[in-house]
Amino acid sequence: MLFDPESVAVVGATPKRGKVGYAILENLRNFKGKVYAINPKYSEVLGYPCYPSILEAPKVDLAVIAVPAKAVNSVLEQCGEKGIRYAVVISAGFRESGREGAKLEEEMVEICRKYGIKLVGPNCLGIINTHNGLNATFARTTPKQGNIAFLSQSGAFIIAVMEYFKNVNEGFSKIVSMGNKAVLDEADIIEMLKNDPYTDVIMLYIEGITDGRKFMDVAEKVGKMKPLVAMKSGKTSAGAKAASSHTGSIAGSYQACLAAFRQSGVIPVSSPEELFDVAKLFSKYRKVKGGVAIVTNSGGPGVMAADAIEEFGLEMASFSQETIEKLKNMLPAGANVYNPVDVLGDADAERFVKAIECVAKDKNVGSIVAITVPTATLSFEEAAKFRIDKPYVLCFMGWEKSDFFDPVRAVRALSSLYNYTKFVERGERRYREYAFDRDKVRKALKSKNPFDLLRVIGIPTPRYGVAKTAEEALKIADEIGYPVAMKVLGDILHKTDVGCVKLNVERSEVKKAFVEIIANAERLGNVRIEGVLIQEMVRGGKEVIVGMKRDANFGPLMMFGLGGIYVEVFKDVTFRIAPLSEEDAKEMIREIKAYKLLKGVRGEKPSDLNAIADVIMRLAQLSLEFPEISEMEINPLRVFEKGCSALDFKIILKEVV
Amino acid sequence: MLFDPESVAVVGATPKRGKVGYAILENLRNFKGKVYAINPKYSEVLGYPCYPSILEAPKVDLAVIAVPAKAVNSVLEQCGEKGIRYAVVISAGFRESGREGAKLEEEMVEICRKYGIKLVGPNCLGIINTHNGLNATFARTTPKQGNIAFLSQSGAFIIAVMEYFKNVNEGFSKIVSMGNKAVLDEADIIEMLKNDPYTDVIMLYIEGITDGRKFMDVAEKVGKMKPLVAMKSGKTSAGAKAASSHTGSIAGSYQACLAAFRQSGVIPVSSPEELFDVAKLFSKYRKVKGGVAIVTNSGGPGVMAADAIEEFGLEMASFSQETIEKLKNMLPAGANVYNPVDVLGDADAERFVKAIECVAKDKNVGSIVAITVPTATLSFEEAAKFRIDKPYVLCFMGWEKSDFFDPVRAVRALSSLYNYTKFVERGERRYREYAFDRDKVRKALKSKNPFDLLRVIGIPTPRYGVAKTAEEALKIADEIGYPVAMKVLGDILHKTDVGCVKLNVERSEVKKAFVEIIANAERLGNVRIEGVLIQEMVRGGKEVIVGMKRDANFGPLMMFGLGGIYVEVFKDVTFRIAPLSEEDAKEMIREIKAYKLLKGVRGEKPSDLNAIADVIMRLAQLSLEFPEISEMEINPLRVFEKGCSALDFKIILKEVV
Repeated sequence: MLFDPESVAVVGATPKRGKVGYAILENLRNFKGKVYAINPKYSEVLGYPCYPSILEAPKVDLAVIAVPAKAVNSVLEQCGEKGIRYAVVISAGFRESGREGAKLEEEMVEICRKYGIKLVGPNCLGIINTHNGLNATFARTTPKQGNIAFLSQSGAFIIAVMEYFKNVNEGFSKIVSMGNKAVLDEADIIEMLKNDPYTDVIMLYIEGITDGRKFMDVAEKVGKMKPLVAMKSGKTSAGAKAASSHTGSIAGSYQACLAAFRQSGVIPVSSPEELFDVAKLFSKYRKVKGGVAIVTNSGGPGVMAADAIEEFGLEMASFSQETIEKLKNMLPAGANVYNPVDVLGDADAERFVKAIECVAKDKNVGSIVAITVPTATLSFEEAAKFRIDKPYVLCFMGWEKSDFFDPVRAVRALSSLYNYTKFVERGERRYREYAFDRDKVRKALKSKNPFDLLRVIGIPTPRYGVAKTAEEALKIADEIGYPVAMKVLGDILHKTDVGCVKLNVERSEVKKAFVEIIANAERLGNVRIEGVLIQEMVRGGKEVIVGMKRDANFGPLMMFGLGGIYVEVFKDVTFRIAPLSEEDAKEMIREIKAYKLLKGVRGEKPSDLNAIADVIMRLAQLSLEFPEISEMEINPLRVFEKGCSALDFKIILKEVV
Repeated sequence: MLFDPESVAVVGATPKRGKVGYAILENLRNFKGKVYAINPKYSEVLGYPCYPSILEAPKVDLAVIAVPAKAVNSVLEQCGEKGIRYAVVISAGFRESGREGAKLEEEMVEICRKYGIKLVGPNCLGIINTHNGLNATFARTTPKQGNIAFLSQSGAFIIAVMEYFKNVNEGFSKIVSMGNKAVLDEADIIEMLKNDPYTDVIMLYIEGITDGRKFMDVAEKVGKMKPLVAMKSGKTSAGAKAASSHTGSIAGSYQACLAAFRQSGVIPVSSPEELFDVAKLFSKYRKVKGGVAIVTNSGGPGVMAADAIEEFGLEMASFSQETIEKLKNMLPAGANVYNPVDVLGDADAERFVKAIECVAKDKNVGSIVAITVPTATLSFEEAAKFRIDKPYVLCFMGWEKSDFFDPVRAVRALSSLYNYTKFVERGERRYREYAFDRDKVRKALKSKNPFDLLRVIGIPTPRYGVAKTAEEALKIADEIGYPVAMKVLGDILHKTDVGCVKLNVERSEVKKAFVEIIANAERLGNVRIEGVLIQEMVRGGKEVIVGMKRDANFGPLMMFGLGGIYVEVFKDVTFRIAPLSEEDAKEMIREIKAYKLLKGVRGEKPSDLNAIADVIMRLAQLSLEFPEISEMEINPLRVFEKGCSALDFKIILKEVV
């Protein structure tokens, strides 16, 4: 109904050229429904009947409001009274303009809630549906019809993109300028497009996501039917400057957003051109299987494409013997019949087309990059007339109708199609459910010994005990076995530096160590000392790090990486949003570069990957169940051939003000 | 003279439309010199006088040859006899077509050597000089004049690029299709362009470099005056598949080429579009200093550009207080006066232009990214009329005259300008000269104990000695001090696995260890055992790897990286071609990611970087002086706060057949 109203009222319509209220009315010229102007000054505007207020107009399905900010809410009240369900507020002067505007926006949300009005904006360009002529924007171009929907947080970018699409003769199904997203956010609008028969792919430009969890749910559901291609800007404003190894500083909100995209199958792109390239490709295809074949009339660009195929993680198709024989028979001597197929510079369109069609029949070929350079013998127009039933991209270099000029750019776009196919075909995901004892967890959250919490949620730790006296320390150490590690328990930073940690302590040294640790701690003054933690010294294994930082928007952002100083230097870490499935957890482990180390290099036995996955999932579930935990990190988690052990653990609870 | 002949003869000229000999003559229509056709069948072709052979023509400066391959060499003989110094051989059918062609090409090289003919080709498109109308190609377009020279190993790619440039209204100074590079290679032609007043930037498409060392020398010399922008294809054919940690497999020829580009200041690009973007930018600018300022009439694209600036390693300019005040005074409330400057969507061209000009006066600003989206109030044409004396790129999104549509792509191009500036301004490089005792080196090269070579060239190693008997072993170990390491000397692979290495050996175990090692070695049968190496056990420090693999084309390719299994997993390595300066060696150390570790993290003292640089330079000089060394690798080199020690060393000499 937002996109298919039977009647639209433009509030703030005016016959004054150059005004927004004029431009909108003008743009509605081709709308296949009724249009009413609303303005107390006129009885008719641009040939449309004009009413003094929306209350006096006939039945209205969609109100497009372009009056000064201060007048918007009373118009919305009238819309509500009249039972209008949809509104687009073009007017600016709300949250984006300061405190007063923010207050107006709050009132706006309240009114919409009261009447159930679904509102786009405020502070936006408007909305377009090319298939019924609904152009409720003040843009100067009307795009042509196509199957790409475009949702953008920047109205200005929409205008630029419409210009670009016009130049390359591409169209849209719907365009939505989301503005301040006071009521409808990106998730709501994506949901509305789920069953839109005119939309095959959804292109997003996002600066921030309103509700992370809701976005992920909707994106995953809709994305399986209609690929979502998203450019997120503002990457570097937060997080990227992080230099420390801690979850807190590595994980910025962009990391959370990328993780969310990944988990919900949204295809991330990093520039406007890539956004268009990928969306255009998805407007034609949404599935690909098998290697990439290159067919070209020129060696050089063929090599460029082959390079790019490897660079973007795709695979060159290897042809069947049958294909090779067929190519040998149809191509002149000197032609390359292996991938990339070079039909030679003297080829005419017929030779090129035959080679493409032959290669496309090979069952190892999933997609084709068709490349030609201008020659005297080959007509671009004719060479494009092949008929194959597999995805392809045209790189006819120098032809205005080509999909691409640049083979590298073509392959980059193609790689998204492969990634999307993998996402769609991934199996049902299994979620583990751990039965945490909530009371025990609550108690452990209050303990000064963070290992108590790990124990309660079933994460293995070295054996330990807390000693209040030197005698107790010896008793505990005797039970654990020697050597042991000893650390003060208390709010002391950099415990090692101030002599409050002793490693490899033998029986004869335990009491002395206890006394020293306490003395060193007391020397700091005014520190509450809870005792000394006596811990088993764990040997061998590999160190990894598992962490969580709660993202304000997406919830618990789980981190996994190689431990020790390497996390700092190589930033070899990966992120997911909780809840995460077994598959997600295992994917995290597999996708860090150091995975090789965990699998075992140079004849080593592999580390226990299941044990790591279990730790990640336990922390994830804990994060979801106990929102008061704002950050935690096991660093290092020591992983063995069988099992693992959390050697150190930090937890930060939300500060209660 | 290649580009500025007074007279050109086209051998193989013909009045038959569609033939290469016709197309060339046709393309020479605008040439500002004399043109002769050579063909025994005609006395005139296309209005040009025609001679039966080149010998009968008047004085000729440049011969363009388009006759069947088999006839080419006799034409060249005639050229030589006539004293013609320059030739372009269009004809194919040489090295690229098999053994017979290769033989013809060898003869061709011989003839050129005999007469001193400088020959372009064979198997090429020809050459173009737009400034005297010399279009000696069979291409169908004649490019317009510009200041970009283009050298390409693929003639087909030239045609595609000419088409692209025509569409964006850009021109060339010279174009050279290098073909098989039988005589003149890329270095020769770059050298010819050094003093060309019409050329400001040289664009290269290269599949392979003919003579690595020569290319580097010429590129460095010419590149300081005229930026060289190069796309090298065939990256992934070699090297990239390497999975092992050894120099040999990580260093492919593409690595060598990239290292050579880096050392000689060539700007590498990875796609055709980037090649054009960067070349076009260099056609206007060649120097930039200071941060990047963004001025925009739209927030979204401004954020994209800011993201890209950080991503491509550039810095956002921070404005002086004066600039901020001036902007505050000239811009409306709500505008952003900090970088990125947002003049707001209602800005007209005047406001935009004033903001740009104001920002450009700030001494912290080195370059400007000017971004506009289409609005009702701003004229693109007018907004582009600012006058500033600093480099800028226009992203007027949707304007056909804009440099770029995509802000990310614009910033990527700009980053090359910053990198080039750094190259040009780098100081004189200092080369160390070590006085190796050549006789001792030769002797050490024959030793079964590779440490002898390190000792001779002054690279620190742990103390060691070679024992032939258990008694000797004890004596040596006593001198070294305990514990020691013991390894068999002999051609045994995987010494550790077969029990031929013992670490941490104490005095009481030395004799037993000796016997065991020898026994284990003898068990392998038929292995020549040279004795047992007794070595000091070195503790502490950090492990790095220094290696060399001789590249067939560029010479010794030096590698440096973090040692141990990390080189394998993170591929955190860097390459340079020997000879390398002190600055090169230090740059290598600084540019690996693990540099942070070497500088010291968490309060550690820094490692001795000078000692590492010294080792790199010593190995580099050794590689240059002794070409019989084909590979070597110190892995690990243990680096301490002061000094370093090579714990293991492998060397492979060229096999003598």
